[in-house]
Amino acid sequence: MTYINDHYLKLNVSYLFTEIARRVQKFRDENPAANVIRLGIGDVTEPLCPAVIQAMHVAVDEMAVRSSFRGYGPEQGYDFLREAIAKNDYQSRGAKVDADEIFVSDGSKCDSANILDIFGADNVVAVLDPVYPVYVDTNVMAGHTGPADATGRYGGLVYLPVTAENNFVPELPRQRVDLIYLCYPNNPTGVVATKEMLKRWVDYARENGSIILYDAAYESYITDPSIPHSIFEIEGAREVALEFRSFSKTAGFTGIRCAFTVIPKDLKGKTRDGRETSIHALWKRRHSTKFNGVSYPVQRGAEAIYSPEGRRQVRETIDYYLTNAKLVREALTKLGIPVYGGVNAPYVWLKTPGGLSSWDFFDKLLRVAHLVGTPGSGFGTCGEGYFRLSSFNSRANVEEAGHRFAKIM
Amino acid sequence: MTYINDHYLKLNVSYLFTEIARRVQKFRDENPAANVIRLGIGDVTEPLCPAVIQAMHVAVDEMAVRSSFRGYGPEQGYDFLREAIAKNDYQSRGAKVDADEIFVSDGSKCDSANILDIFGADNVVAVLDPVYPVYVDTNVMAGHTGPADATGRYGGLVYLPVTAENNFVPELPRQRVDLIYLCYPNNPTGVVATKEMLKRWVDYARENGSIILYDAAYESYITDPSIPHSIFEIEGAREVALEFRSFSKTAGFTGIRCAFTVIPKDLKGKTRDGRETSIHALWKRRHSTKFNGVSYPVQRGAEAIYSPEGRRQVRETIDYYLTNAKLVREALTKLGIPVYGGVNAPYVWLKTPGGLSSWDFFDKLLRVAHLVGTPGSGFGTCGEGYFRLSSFNSRANVEEAGHRFAKIM
Repeated sequence: MTYINDHYLKLNVSYLFTEIARRVQKFRDENPAANVIRLGIGDVTEPLCPAVIQAMHVAVDEMAVRSSFRGYGPEQGYDFLREAIAKNDYQSRGAKVDADEIFVSDGSKCDSANILDIFGADNVVAVLDPVYPVYVDTNVMAGHTGPADATGRYGGLVYLPVTAENNFVPELPRQRVDLIYLCYPNNPTGVVATKEMLKRWVDYARENGSIILYDAAYESYITDPSIPHSIFEIEGAREVALEFRSFSKTAGFTGIRCAFTVIPKDLKGKTRDGRETSIHALWKRRHSTKFNGVSYPVQRGAEAIYSPEGRRQVRETIDYYLTNAKLVREALTKLGIPVYGGVNAPYVWLKTPGGLSSWDFFDKLLRVAHLVGTPGSGFGTCGEGYFRLSSFNSRANVEEAGHRFAKIM
Repeated sequence: MTYINDHYLKLNVSYLFTEIARRVQKFRDENPAANVIRLGIGDVTEPLCPAVIQAMHVAVDEMAVRSSFRGYGPEQGYDFLREAIAKNDYQSRGAKVDADEIFVSDGSKCDSANILDIFGADNVVAVLDPVYPVYVDTNVMAGHTGPADATGRYGGLVYLPVTAENNFVPELPRQRVDLIYLCYPNNPTGVVATKEMLKRWVDYARENGSIILYDAAYESYITDPSIPHSIFEIEGAREVALEFRSFSKTAGFTGIRCAFTVIPKDLKGKTRDGRETSIHALWKRRHSTKFNGVSYPVQRGAEAIYSPEGRRQVRETIDYYLTNAKLVREALTKLGIPVYGGVNAPYVWLKTPGGLSSWDFFDKLLRVAHLVGTPGSGFGTCGEGYFRLSSFNSRANVEEAGHRFAKIM
């Protein structure tokens, strides 16, 4: 019989959001009349902006006519989109990133998972704790870890705690690590990294020959002008970092699917016998062989967010979610619940009241207030006793949620 | 410095179609006035059918309104599409496949590459020769092979020759193999598998505990009613096979991106210590963790091909390409060039005249006739001396190509 990849069997139960969906479905089946408000999975609720809709219609119509029909596109994305990204997201902020260093994809989850394909099996990998589960799970699947211990931590991974005790600022690893996942604005805690913090990481990576996998999926929620949007705003980062970005949270593309990864040509890894190798060339080969590009109308939709109307419309929706986050923060603060994040990020991170475990708080919130959030412990052992609320919902639902929080106190 | 995946460095030069694109670009730069006709890469040329266009417009408009907006969809695809596929592509042909055994994706290339994630590293893998390069290259990248030898064959892979000498019918492997890639209608040779042939493979797999990775991307080109469209039309296949399908060639989706993989719940693999494991469960976990579903308007577009108008429109375009294939066959036959395929498939496979090597014929065809095809040797050593022409082009271009072939004789 054919061998399976045994590493999959090391994975702790099911993927976090699948488990949440299961519990919510069960509650709904048992309480069909309950008006459940979801502040759980980080999924947007507001429609696509008019500029995107219009661009997608035009592109769909192009596909209806032989002379403008497009078949396979370039695997790395169309130049029109790569150039708009390079110019607007990087060069305009003083970050040197060229269009051909951008790889358009169908999602940051996919990219941050698939990136491991091009790295060796013997790297030491560091993650923050709590952390977006995909970084950890994909390392488990790739066989980069041992089995999980009783707390759910996998052998071989280096976990860097981020809690209220250290102000959510991770210490640099005490041992040398090869790959470091950083996500700012952070999912799940909603905190941001200052230029000084990122500079420390870039310096660490340069000294240790490490590579930073920088996830900036939430950069458009940054309101503080002193906070960097990209790791490439930090000097020296081009030699030690790659960056994941997404249109999902920026422009409501969770159901439309478009993202990108920036891999500077200066970024190098090494073979087992010590030869320097271009990470850009490896990812390009991976992209060409295992991927076939993003849907053309979707790429035209993404391009439209860089037009003057697109920018304005997208900004309005982000501001709407940020106001939601502010309302959530205020409602919780009024109840004496300690909250973090939610200023430069769509996520509010809170300490569960009464010392409840994260999942107990999840169940209570669902049962008593018909609210869905995300248990902090689902993001790692250091998330135990914390809870994530997302601001992705209508104003009316967020205000209603604000009232309902009182019920659980 | 961070370790890379050294296996990538074993890959023979660049991906076949990237190399073709490079040579064509060079020719065009040097001969800007030449009217180059491409019968090379298997990319469609005719526009999306009206039913698909209409469905996509409706879906885009749904995304513009809060009440009908959809964020993250189910990773495995929307039920409306999975059910349409199960009913129309399988149950209507007497093949038992349930909707929840279908995993919708953004491409068959991606699926046939990513499937290796869930299998172990120690399986013996068999491919036909010539073969779609992605099967081979992704095994190299995953470290399932040794380095390439002087002929370009990778150590550890089992190659099963298919040439005019054996009528393009591969022998069963002499040794036990765990994974077998089969593609019918075949890319690149355009030949098909009879029920008897597939039954032999299913029996082999059942006897040897092997799994067949069956690629049916071109099934809609089958015109002969006795030829099976799916491996699941063969008794016993549910326990030994999974199947890749695509909307790319069926409905012109190469630039729109939608495909699916069928994994029966009866299909099992084993752990290193011999425990039976569900392949369906592993792929579901992989899909949930490393993928985020297909764009909603794209899934609606795919669904539309199963409507009565959609079916009729899609059929017309396939018949158009099949007539092209017939014209190519006839033009070559008239010149005394031996041709294969092109009856139940969009590809015509020919023996290069004058004993030219595949790449020499490629260069000559481009230089003398301004025609682009695909060198058979790019698909494997047994493809040397053969050449693939695709029928994906306008009637006028195919007719013009027919005239130009004479120039090279």
